[in-house]
Amino acid sequence: MAKAPVLTPRADDFPRWYQDLINKAELADNGPVRGTMVIRPYGYGLWERMQAEMDARIKETGTQNAYFPLLIPQSYFAKEADHVEGFAPELAVVTHGGGKELEEPAVVRPTSEMIVNDYFSKWVQSYRDLPLLINQWANVVRWELRPRLFLRTTEFLWQEGHTAHATYEEARDFAAHIQREVYGDFLRSVLAMDFVSGRKTVKERFAGAVNTLTLESMMGDGKALQMVTSHELGQNFARAFNTTYLSKEGRQELVWQTSWGSTTRMIGALVMTHGDDDGLRVPPRLAQIQVVVLAVKDDEAVLAKVHEIGDRLRAAGVRVKVDDRTDTPFGRRAVDWELKGVPVRIEIGPRDLENGTAMLARRIPGGKAPVAVDSLVALVPGMLEEDQALLLEQSRQRRESRTVEVSTPGEAVEAAAHGWARIPWSALGTEGEAKLAEHSVTVRCLLAEDGSVPADEDAPGNVAVVARAY
Amino acid sequence: MAKAPVLTPRADDFPRWYQDLINKAELADNGPVRGTMVIRPYGYGLWERMQAEMDARIKETGTQNAYFPLLIPQSYFAKEADHVEGFAPELAVVTHGGGKELEEPAVVRPTSEMIVNDYFSKWVQSYRDLPLLINQWANVVRWELRPRLFLRTTEFLWQEGHTAHATYEEARDFAAHIQREVYGDFLRSVLAMDFVSGRKTVKERFAGAVNTLTLESMMGDGKALQMVTSHELGQNFARAFNTTYLSKEGRQELVWQTSWGSTTRMIGALVMTHGDDDGLRVPPRLAQIQVVVLAVKDDEAVLAKVHEIGDRLRAAGVRVKVDDRTDTPFGRRAVDWELKGVPVRIEIGPRDLENGTAMLARRIPGGKAPVAVDSLVALVPGMLEEDQALLLEQSRQRRESRTVEVSTPGEAVEAAAHGWARIPWSALGTEGEAKLAEHSVTVRCLLAEDGSVPADEDAPGNVAVVARAY
Repeated sequence: MAKAPVLTPRADDFPRWYQDLINKAELADNGPVRGTMVIRPYGYGLWERMQAEMDARIKETGTQNAYFPLLIPQSYFAKEADHVEGFAPELAVVTHGGGKELEEPAVVRPTSEMIVNDYFSKWVQSYRDLPLLINQWANVVRWELRPRLFLRTTEFLWQEGHTAHATYEEARDFAAHIQREVYGDFLRSVLAMDFVSGRKTVKERFAGAVNTLTLESMMGDGKALQMVTSHELGQNFARAFNTTYLSKEGRQELVWQTSWGSTTRMIGALVMTHGDDDGLRVPPRLAQIQVVVLAVKDDEAVLAKVHEIGDRLRAAGVRVKVDDRTDTPFGRRAVDWELKGVPVRIEIGPRDLENGTAMLARRIPGGKAPVAVDSLVALVPGMLEEDQALLLEQSRQRRESRTVEVSTPGEAVEAAAHGWARIPWSALGTEGEAKLAEHSVTVRCLLAEDGSVPADEDAPGNVAVVARAY
Repeated sequence: MAKAPVLTPRADDFPRWYQDLINKAELADNGPVRGTMVIRPYGYGLWERMQAEMDARIKETGTQNAYFPLLIPQSYFAKEADHVEGFAPELAVVTHGGGKELEEPAVVRPTSEMIVNDYFSKWVQSYRDLPLLINQWANVVRWELRPRLFLRTTEFLWQEGHTAHATYEEARDFAAHIQREVYGDFLRSVLAMDFVSGRKTVKERFAGAVNTLTLESMMGDGKALQMVTSHELGQNFARAFNTTYLSKEGRQELVWQTSWGSTTRMIGALVMTHGDDDGLRVPPRLAQIQVVVLAVKDDEAVLAKVHEIGDRLRAAGVRVKVDDRTDTPFGRRAVDWELKGVPVRIEIGPRDLENGTAMLARRIPGGKAPVAVDSLVALVPGMLEEDQALLLEQSRQRRESRTVEVSTPGEAVEAAAHGWARIPWSALGTEGEAKLAEHSVTVRCLLAEDGSVPADEDAPGNVAVVARAY
């Protein structure tokens, strides 16, 4: 008899599978205010590891963390026309504080360009103060009409970088550096996620930016997800807030700026990229628990052995959890760890003790076999490395096998039902882009002919990557 | 000629000195919405180190991090009578979202007991789910009428722990454990701050708690500051949210709860405890920069040497910053590092190079002398240990020398003009407490006769610690 599936199979109903997985792997719950979420400990553990890995990479660029207020005077939003137009429909507004109606309502930050520039204009005086490289880890609120856990939530957690530079070139290069060396490296080497790295079309650009760079990944159903973005802001915000510096030559000049962000949406992306019908599969470099050691039965010698194995693996630098909750049935615990996607599961029962073996189950390639207990410390680190590489390779293969070359907007729409399409930008253009939109298909990004990020939207040979997207 | 003071001297005007220091050491700025603040990179660096040290201690207790929404439906606040009465005057309320008036306004969390219990009541089913030990790092908003940077701000950052237990005793012991092993250990061994550990009177208790434990420290002006608190919530919130579990004996029982928090206020406490007329003094275990190595002049050999020294100290496990900004005058940079309170400053100029020496200035005990460059790696770690111990000892001495024993409320008020008073609780009582309040003097906490935390407010021999407070 086949066992009943724990989750709705992906092939039956992908969105339902996603919802099931998040619920059963205890990643998050819906919050009481529409569109908000509670991130449960196992889900938050993924975020903590993302933060640690991302923060280290951000600090390597010389960027420092700081914290700006949650509440922004409503009048600030009138200062940059494109920005306010982009964000006005999503704002949450505090009208009452301390039991009184406020003289000026305060907006709960949807992003911090406005308030950051208010302070940059005070802190930046001379060329010696540049570049000014600031990041903050914070929550933001954007009212969501069609919320979905992690992917689109009214409140989400993120890091937002904000920088000011003396020249256009420096700002442009910094935004590109963040995209490549911080975000790109993080996605590939920690999340084990493949992506394409390109520039947004004018239509898809961040409100207030002059150029938006994006990394786009293919999810398990062939749709695209915008993973992270990095914006060249030009001098738009500097002009609105008069953020100027005294140059070496003694002139007052406007600064050039960037901003860039990555969010808890990455947890949703992780699920939709590496998840399968049995649950999540967590890349070992991200996993807070790389190996779980389970006591099959409540037996003194077994309990001693699982803790001993846990200690030995920990001493070898592996992140281990010992599961000795023998008052919960073994089968239920095994399914739970499978749902949660812990890469390696080691099971010890009384018979294993006699044989000096353990049952070792690998979540990522699959499979289960007995191994000698004494070989675990030598075996496990290599398995984790293999798993990490395998997930990235599977993600790359999915994108390659489900991307097709097309030459007309109609073909692009058709292809987007199954995966991604690549189409010459010259064959699409803003008119073709508008046509795709009628079918809920969007240009995810533009790539140069050689696959690099184009310096210019209309450079000859640019290719548009086209897909349905989350 | 005496040099002009960089800060208003503490003896002239302590609040002004505090404000000056925060401004000139670049710790924080006032935000545009009244009572909010911008935490600048150097100030935020202190918070990041506090978070890392505190988080490690919290995790050692088996507590896991999670994240609950910022926005809480207003109706939740009607569920626990004392809690709503305590918080109603401080709430910030979102009435509009996504361009529309909301059907039910949402409160920006002032604390999360309400929303946490909403989920605890879903997650806790059986005794197997207990204890449930959750912490979150988050921002909260409480409308402040008399804001002061770090000490009382409309928005502040904190960690808030929330736990549920099967029995009263377990909850009580857990709150005490947090107070002693997490908070107490952190304050003493990282912040180098002395404190008394006691229980709050009924009047000073957290709204909704049955007992509040507190750590109180003496600031440089003799006033008290409540550093952290840990609450026994009894079954008040469990009753309001029907948070029950099925016991081993098969009965539905209400859980027993605790909550506990520590905030960015600790940065203000750090300033007012260890600061002097030249600026901040950062305890080495907290400092993000323990040693700064300054190039006195723009000279190739000097620059090479400061980086070499920086690398050698870093290799010895010291947190080092190399200051090679020779386009800023040396004197200004030296004053700036003094303001910022970096424990050890090493200065290298061309003449030092010839002699194989460096000028070494110690911020905490004071003093400046040449030392052989080759001895730095051997010398510096010991100095940092000495500095850490000295700050704690100075903090302890201040409290001891400025605390007096009194026997009447009148004497207590008088003593509170200069420092703290200790008075038998039997000689004060709630009537005496009300009398003190007329003079803005409060009971900071009650101690048992032997200095421990009293199990009962009215235990014989209880002593009240009385002071003016921030």
